[in-house]
This record gives sequence, structure tokens and C-alpha cells, in this order.
Amino acid sequence: MSIAGNVGLGDLPRICPLISRRVQESADTMETRVVQVGAVRFGDARPVVIAGPCAVESREQTLEVARAVKAAGAEMLRGGAYKPRTSPHDFQGLGVEGLRILREASRETGLPVVTEVMDPRLVETVAEYADMLQIGSRNMQNYPLLVEAGKSGKPVLLKRGMAASLCEWLGAAEYVAKEGNLEIVLCERGIKAFPAGEYSRNVLDLNVIPAVKEETFLPVIVDPSHATGVASMVEGASCAAVEYGSHGLIIEVACDEEGSPRPKCDAVQAINPATLRRIVRFIDFHTDLRAPRRAHAV
Amino acid sequence: MSIAGNVGLGDLPRICPLISRRVQESADTMETRVVQVGAVRFGDARPVVIAGPCAVESREQTLEVARAVKAAGAEMLRGGAYKPRTSPHDFQGLGVEGLRILREASRETGLPVVTEVMDPRLVETVAEYADMLQIGSRNMQNYPLLVEAGKSGKPVLLKRGMAASLCEWLGAAEYVAKEGNLEIVLCERGIKAFPAGEYSRNVLDLNVIPAVKEETFLPVIVDPSHATGVASMVEGASCAAVEYGSHGLIIEVACDEEGSPRPKCDAVQAINPATLRRIVRFIDFHTDLRAPRRAHAV
Amino acid sequence: MSIAGNVGLGDLPRICPLISRRVQESADTMETRVVQVGAVRFGDARPVVIAGPCAVESREQTLEVARAVKAAGAEMLRGGAYKPRTSPHDFQGLGVEGLRILREASRETGLPVVTEVMDPRLVETVAEYADMLQIGSRNMQNYPLLVEAGKSGKPVLLKRGMAASLCEWLGAAEYVAKEGNLEIVLCERGIKAFPAGEYSRNVLDLNVIPAVKEETFLPVIVDPSHATGVASMVEGASCAAVEYGSHGLIIEVACDEEGSPRPKCDAVQAINPATLRRIVRFIDFHTDLRAPRRAHAV
Amino acid sequence: MSIAGNVGLGDLPRICPLISRRVQESADTMETRVVQVGAVRFGDARPVVIAGPCAVESREQTLEVARAVKAAGAEMLRGGAYKPRTSPHDFQGLGVEGLRILREASRETGLPVVTEVMDPRLVETVAEYADMLQIGSRNMQNYPLLVEAGKSGKPVLLKRGMAASLCEWLGAAEYVAKEGNLEIVLCERGIKAFPAGEYSRNVLDLNVIPAVKEETFLPVIVDPSHATGVASMVEGASCAAVEYGSHGLIIEVACDEEGSPRPKCDAVQAINPATLRRIVRFIDFHTDLRAPRRAHAV
Repeated sequence: MSIAGNVGLGDLPRICPLISRRVQESADTMETRVVQVGAVRFGDARPVVIAGPCAVESREQTLEVARAVKAAGAEMLRGGAYKPRTSPHDFQGLGVEGLRILREASRETGLPVVTEVMDPRLVETVAEYADMLQIGSRNMQNYPLLVEAGKSGKPVLLKRGMAASLCEWLGAAEYVAKEGNLEIVLCERGIKAFPAGEYSRNVLDLNVIPAVKEETFLPVIVDPSHATGVASMVEGASCAAVEYGSHGLIIEVACDEEGSPRPKCDAVQAINPATLRRIVRFIDFHTDLRAPRRAHAV
Repeated sequence: MSIAGNVGLGDLPRICPLISRRVQESADTMETRVVQVGAVRFGDARPVVIAGPCAVESREQTLEVARAVKAAGAEMLRGGAYKPRTSPHDFQGLGVEGLRILREASRETGLPVVTEVMDPRLVETVAEYADMLQIGSRNMQNYPLLVEAGKSGKPVLLKRGMAASLCEWLGAAEYVAKEGNLEIVLCERGIKAFPAGEYSRNVLDLNVIPAVKEETFLPVIVDPSHATGVASMVEGASCAAVEYGSHGLIIEVACDEEGSPRPKCDAVQAINPATLRRIVRFIDFHTDLRAPRRAHAV
Repeated sequence: MSIAGNVGLGDLPRICPLISRRVQESADTMETRVVQVGAVRFGDARPVVIAGPCAVESREQTLEVARAVKAAGAEMLRGGAYKPRTSPHDFQGLGVEGLRILREASRETGLPVVTEVMDPRLVETVAEYADMLQIGSRNMQNYPLLVEAGKSGKPVLLKRGMAASLCEWLGAAEYVAKEGNLEIVLCERGIKAFPAGEYSRNVLDLNVIPAVKEETFLPVIVDPSHATGVASMVEGASCAAVEYGSHGLIIEVACDEEGSPRPKCDAVQAINPATLRRIVRFIDFHTDLRAPRRAHAV
Repeated sequence: MSIAGNVGLGDLPRICPLISRRVQESADTMETRVVQVGAVRFGDARPVVIAGPCAVESREQTLEVARAVKAAGAEMLRGGAYKPRTSPHDFQGLGVEGLRILREASRETGLPVVTEVMDPRLVETVAEYADMLQIGSRNMQNYPLLVEAGKSGKPVLLKRGMAASLCEWLGAAEYVAKEGNLEIVLCERGIKAFPAGEYSRNVLDLNVIPAVKEETFLPVIVDPSHATGVASMVEGASCAAVEYGSHGLIIEVACDEEGSPRPKCDAVQAINPATLRRIVRFIDFHTDLRAPRRAHAV
């Protein structure tokens, strides 16, 4: 009984030769390839922290959060100008106006900015304002979008689809790579499985991190906000991801001072700046100590 | 502990008011809304059979299969001119050339044709050649694409995403409806779950059929080819889907006569024309007998 | 990268040689092995209908339901005397008293009875009262229980575990077979996957039916009550299962006449006797017509 | 549309009042309840490391591994005398002979021992030799077994079922608690979901750790061996689990010196003693540093 579409890790050299360790022989012995966005280096010894609001909802809110995450030690800014929402009647993002606000926040704080693009017709526009293009989970297999992102030459943050196998995820990255763009960072963000919705939004699949590292030289980070959907879980999930070898984190933050606007979108998964500061401190201290400890590793 | 993004069927009136039975009061008592494509009526008493090759690979192959499925009793033709493939190095479809071949096959056989569109920039082009636009599983939440499909005014076949909840699926349909286009047919095609890959490609989730019918007035069909991935399962899955209330089937067929070209793509899930004929005969006889039997139903 | 515990259908000859078609050479060409319980024949041309209350809650309720399912055309009686419940504070069944009531109901109606046993120490007792032993989903891999059930020599109804692969399920059946007992009927009852709980209790996995038939000669039936958890879905699921080749059904029924006691346990998935009658009629007519139709099958 | 069996965290006070934080009011403010096994304290500041062979295969192998894990810093010994295996034709464990070997290894090393019991008739015997009873994943809902384990008064290590919701898992623990035995340690060991088998054996669900802590006062540990099924992932998974708040680890170890016997069972997921030593060192250093860091936590 043959089953259509059945592939396994052994098929990766055929599916994604450009990013497969087994094919790119020099890469096999190579460390992770460093993807650089401004001064930020994904794949280097120190895990990168990207933080910012879920959505860009106003200039004031975005600047306030950007300053707060900068102060807390984040190295890069996130925020959605185009928001994929389950219902078309929900807030869809500020669009180009949101991109302008992100650019301003980036200029003021010095943090490079990553933001999602969903439409191949908008890749050029988003690439004007952003330092890195995010391809969201829902669009992981939106191949025309991946091709445009590849052509743009901009660094790409490629989230894993909610039900994507490792083969499908790396196959999607290959669409970007095929356009001559190897500036790709992969991002695990939780998968759909039976417990999703009982105590967390998705199931955080950290086992995929070492598997990614074994199969490709591209860096891989984790989104603990979507993987948990619960603010009180984000710190633990962040530290766990870093311990399991993640090259970074992308985290949703909301300011909780009096007078700060409450986000309209996914508010219950945003952490406050104080929690973000603790996560950054964990990374400081993890990075200092990891080297000697890992030196003993076989 | 609140969880971001947790929604249930009770949220459908907010997520998708335009297609929700509970909101569209006259629809609540209403039968399924009939979606018409040429002379084909989705949602009517008789389940519709769409059949054709997985991909349009050549003029000869497509015409041969089109004639065969017409002879076997199919009412509509399927075939991919743009193919979403796990690897960018695999055959991606013939593009516009494929659309022309499909048009020719449609003209010759009289069968209306449905084909997949993946790129919002190509909706207009595909709409010129096709009678119905298919939005594939990987693109169920490709919202810019859904919006373009909605604007085209063409009937839309919206496949369920591999990990889509019913709320997410109907939310996606609402993007089409919001553009003033209610000519939507939903299509269950198997979901990702732990057994996928052991004995079938996906898990055929027939329970979703009555659930769709309870929540919306849009017709719903089943794709037994992708839901099984195994040619020898397609007939059983087809009959089961019809018995469970599916308004139709979309089936991949390949000719198995000597000299017929073997498909390059998903060959092991394509049935032969003789099997298709048996499925159509099952529908004939099911339709004749269902009425009196169901009349007794409470 | 090797993964512990990874097995596939190709390992079945090693995992379960006694029930594997590929090993039992004469069985390979053989039809399904008929498992007989009294006059009831599982695996024969006509699908068997087992029906009865979820739990035996009182003598009156059980006799009433038993008479009703007999009148509706069921051939065998089900009912739980020992109930596995999520909470130890919930009703756990009437125990031996429940077995006695089932025996009386069986005597009166002439229907053989199947009931669940959960404890290896009770296999002998249950075997005294019941005609067939049910191993429930939660106990599919309770190996000491399977061994005792095997030794009892009684026919065994082995439900699939909620997350059991086909290999694990057939491996469990092999524990019974190894004790010299081949009187085994397999039962698909829905699996755990992401949609479970949104619109149905479990995901009914009908693709497993042809896969079971390809790998073993044991009969396989379906439990549409647990696979849906919704009374209004049971008829559709039953007809679908029979169309997909199920050798039978096991269905929960409650009487809905005025004065009939409402069940304490899983009431919302029990159908009424009138619905059961329609399902039996569907089987009558399906059995009459299947033979000539299937004769054309390749 | 009501669905039978649908429960959520809000039902826990009814499902498991004896172990629910929300019911046991004094427990709500209380820290985790410490479960003591000899000198080992589960739920205390320092995570506990349990290590040992998958199965007890011989006296020599077990003593060698026991000495090695003791030397590496483990505080407790694991090892299976009764092994639940997919096939009845596979090695089923040494039984009482295995228990005797474990007792000897415990005496020699001073490590208390935990071992699996699968049969309610053997609880008394296993309790004579072991310091803690393990209820395995396949038997999480084997209620007669849970009752006997409860009655034994021995500490119980209750693994999560492969498809168990948090409600079902805590409901199972309540069966033990109802017999007056609160000496329960919960153990996450990976769940079944679509990626299982592609790059890891199961999906390690660390989000459940904070959820367990919010709902009950019982300690919770992690089994990184079964959750990954890949030896090279065990160290990362262990550190991640500890960072996410796990009260301990249970790890499979095999000696890799020349002349050491290769395990018959799940060899590819066993780590060597040197790796175990690194994990213990990580815990040393994590425990020292956690207190001040966590003191800042809100």
C-alpha cells in the first residue's frame, strides 16, 4: 500500500538541496550560518531577543512599547502592520501607516524591525520600511509570497505552519533560497495538537530545534507568545527554548503602566517589560555560562 | 488562566455573520443554498462529482482524462495548472498553458472546470479560463487571495486547511463573502493527525460535514483523494462521504489504458475511470433511494 | 538520527504474526475470518448491529432499552456494568448486579450480550455473564487484561486506543491471539486530534477500516456513538461506516418515551430506538444491493 | 449541539477535588506538596534526577548502570522489571527476578528505586521491592491499577497518557488520592501528535508543566527519554524542562564502555553516564542561581 505524499527526512536532499546540510557538504561541518539584520546576528553564540507589540495600533502605543523593549534589552523590534485575523470583521492592521510608525520607532530606538507581509504585491512596500520580512504561520506554504520574499533579497523570518512537518517547513524555506536569498531564519511557534486550547494556545514543539539544526545550517528561533497564548507561561517557555538551543526569541510585549493603551489583539499573551527584562538577563547569564559547560559536550 | 485566540462555535455569529445560520435568520430554516456552476448545482439533492487529473501535464493526457471522466458520469472537470509543491524543484504546473488546455477540455466535453489559484495577482487570469476557482488547503488562510477570489464574483471552492478548526474555516469563507460573493462551496480534504502517513495520507474527518451544515447554509463536499492518498481507499471514502451527507466529491483520476501517460504527481492516489463509474452509479442509486428513507428521519 | 519505537506496517509480520495476513499465508487469499457470538456472525456479508444503553443503570431501564433495540432490529446487546470514568467520584457502574441485569435482558430478548471488563481479576466473572468481552479504549494496551481475555476463550471486542497507531492496535490484538484465542473483533471508536471537542467528541477515522482489512483477517466494526459524541451525528456516521466496509456497529441507545429514565452517563450521544430502526433498515437495503454492485469492483 | 464528554479546566473541582488547588483552599496559597521517597524530595527547590536502564536485562547490566548513574549524581534509580511492549513476542521483562536485581542495586548504591507495575495483582509484590510505583503511559486510565496503587500507600509516579488531556490526567491521579494516598508525582513524557515519528518519538509538551502547577499542588517531572526517543536530544530536553519549572527528570541510561552490554530495548534513546553528569551539573548550577533570579519574578 503506497501513500501519496509520504516523505521523510531522508528526502530532504531532494526537497531542499540548497539548505540541506547533507547536500551542502562544506556546511555539514560548518556551524550555523549567521544571518545578519543590521547589527543583529542570528545564529551566533548569543540568542537574539525580538520584542514589540502584537499589532501596531497607534503611534503612541508603538513608540511606548519600542522604548520599553529597548530599555529591557531587546535587540530588535517586532509589530504587525498587516494582521491575519480569523474574521474579516476584526481589526486588520494599519497597513502602510503602521509601517511608517514602525520605521519611526526603529529610527528612534536604533532597533531593526521585523514585520509580517501576507501579500506578494506588498513585498516591495514592506521591504522599504522593514529590515526583515516575516512570513506568518498561515502563509508558510504561500509559495508566490515566498518567491517574492526571496527576490527581495531582504532577510526573511519564516514561521512554521501550524501543521507543518519538518520536511514541509524546510521545503518552504527552499522556495526563498531558490531565489538566491539565504538570509532565512526559521521560527517555531507552536503546533496544533489535541491539547491546544485546554491550557495553552498551541503545543510548543521544542524537539524540532535540534532536528532543524541537524538538517540545515539556517538559524532557528522560537515564538513563546503564540506557542503558549498565556502571558504567565512566556518566561518559562523562553528560558526552556534557549536551553534547548534556540538562536533567539520573538516575544509580544504590552506596557502595563497606568494610562498605557490595552492592546486590541491577543492581549492575554503579551508580557510586560519587567518580564522581558528578566528573560534578557537570563540570556546574559546563560550565554556567559554556556560556553564552558557546553565545551564538555560530546 | 485565559488563552489567547480561543474561540468556539458560539463565536461564529461574530466571526462570520454573513454565512452563519444563526445570524441569517431566514437561512436558519432554509435548506442549503444552491451554488450553481454552469448547469451543475452544489447543495441540491444529488451530490455532484468533480473529477479529473491531479495536474494538467499535457494536452493529450488532459483531454483523455476529461473524456474518460465525462463518460464515467462526472459533471465537472478538475485539474491543476498551478501546483503547490513541497519542493520548489518539483513540477509546478503548466501555468497559463495549462489553463488553455483545461478550457479546451471543458469546451469539448461540456464539463465546467475548477482549478486552483494560489496567487492573488493571477485570480483574474484564472477566472478567465475557469468556471470555479479552487483555494487550496495550504492557502485557506491566505486572506489577500480570498479577498481577490471574493471580488472576482466567480464561484469559489474553499478547501479546509490541514489543521483548521471549523471556526477558522468558516472565518476564511467569510473573507470571500465579505466581498459580496456567496458562491462558496466548502471542501473537507483530510486533516493532519497522528495516524497520517501510517496507512493513509491524512485523516478524513467526516464528522465535520453535519457540523458545517448546522453552522452555515453553504454546501460542503469531500476530496477523498487527498483525504486518503491511497487509490484503493477512494471508492469507500466516496460512498461514506455521500452517506454522511456530503453535497459532492472531487476526485483525482488517471487513465490506465495501455499507452496512457502515468501522472508525475500523486499517481498513487488517482483512481481509474472504471472506479469512478462505480462511484457515480452509487450516487445514482443513493439519490433515488435517499428521499423516501430520509423522509422517515426526525 | 534513529528514533526509538518507530515502527510501520512493514513491521506487522514481526509484531503480530498470528493475525497478520502477510504471515498467515492461507489467510491472505482468505476472506475475513468470521467471529461467531451465539447466532451473530461478525465478518459475514451483513454488518452486525450491537445496541444498548451506555451504562446499566437499573433493571427497568436496561430491560426497556433491550426490548426496544431488539424491536428495532439490533442483533446483539451492549451495556456497561463496569464504567471507566474520568473522575472516581462519578458513577462507576453497578458491577455484578449490572452483569445479572444484562444476563436477564439477554435471556428475555434472545440477544447475546457484550460488556466491558477493565480488571484482569474480573475476567472470569464477567465471562460467566457475558457472551463477548469488551476491552475499552483506555485499556487497549492493558496487557495483563488482554492476556486474561485471551485465556478466557470468550470472543473479545477490542476497541482502538484514542491515540493508537494501527501497529499498536494490532499488537494489542496479538496479545489475545497469543493465548490461543482468535475470536477477536476490532472496533474503531474515534481518535484524539485537534478538532476533538469543537464539534464532535473524537475524530472518526474511517480510513483505518480498509487498512485493517488489508493487514489482518479479523473483522472490524465502528462505534459511532463515541466517535461523534453527538446523537444527531450517529445515523450519518453509521451509514458512512457501513459504506466504507465496516463489519458492524456498536451504538448507544436511550428510550425517549415519556417516563423513560434519562441516562446518567453520556446522555447526549445516545440515539432513540426510531433512529436505530432507520440504521438497521439502511443495513438491510445496503446488504441486498451491495453484492451485485461490488461484483463489478476490481 | 452538545458534545458528550466535553470537560475543561473549570470542571477540575468536580473531577478531582482532593488534588485541585481551587478546592483545597489552604493548598491554593501553598507551595507544591513535597513527596518524599527515602531521602529524595519531589517538589522541593532542587529538581530530582531519576536515572537507570530502560529494562532490567541482567544483574550485571543493572548494577553497572546503577553505579554509573549514582556516580553521575542521580538521586534515584529507575528500571523496568515488567515491560509493556507493542508485541507480545518481544522481551517482556524479567519479572520478580528483575525486582530482586533492582533491590540489590538500590541497596548497593543507596538510591531508592522506582519501577513500573502494570497488573493490579502484582502491586503488592512490586511494592515489596520498590520504593515508588510507576504507572506507565499506557495504563494511565487503568483504574483498577490506580486504585491498588492508591491502597498500597507507596509513592506513585503517574505518567501522562499519550493522548491525555490535563483533565483526564488529574482525574487519574484522583483515583490514587481517593484511596487516601497523596504521595503522587506526575510525569509528562511526550504526547502523540502529527510530527511524532518524523524527527522525535513523541511531542514534548512542556506547556503542561505550569498548567499542572496552577491546577494542583502535586509535583510534576519530565521524562525526556520517551518524549524525544533520540539520545542526542535528551540533554537539551532535560535542561529545557528544568528551566520551565519541572520538579525533576526520569532518564534512561546505558553504559557505553567497551564490554558493556547493549540494551535490547529502546537503545537509541539511552544516554551515556557522561551526558547524565552534565545534566546533573546543570541542575546544580541552575538551583544555585534560580533563587535570586526568580525572586524578581512577579
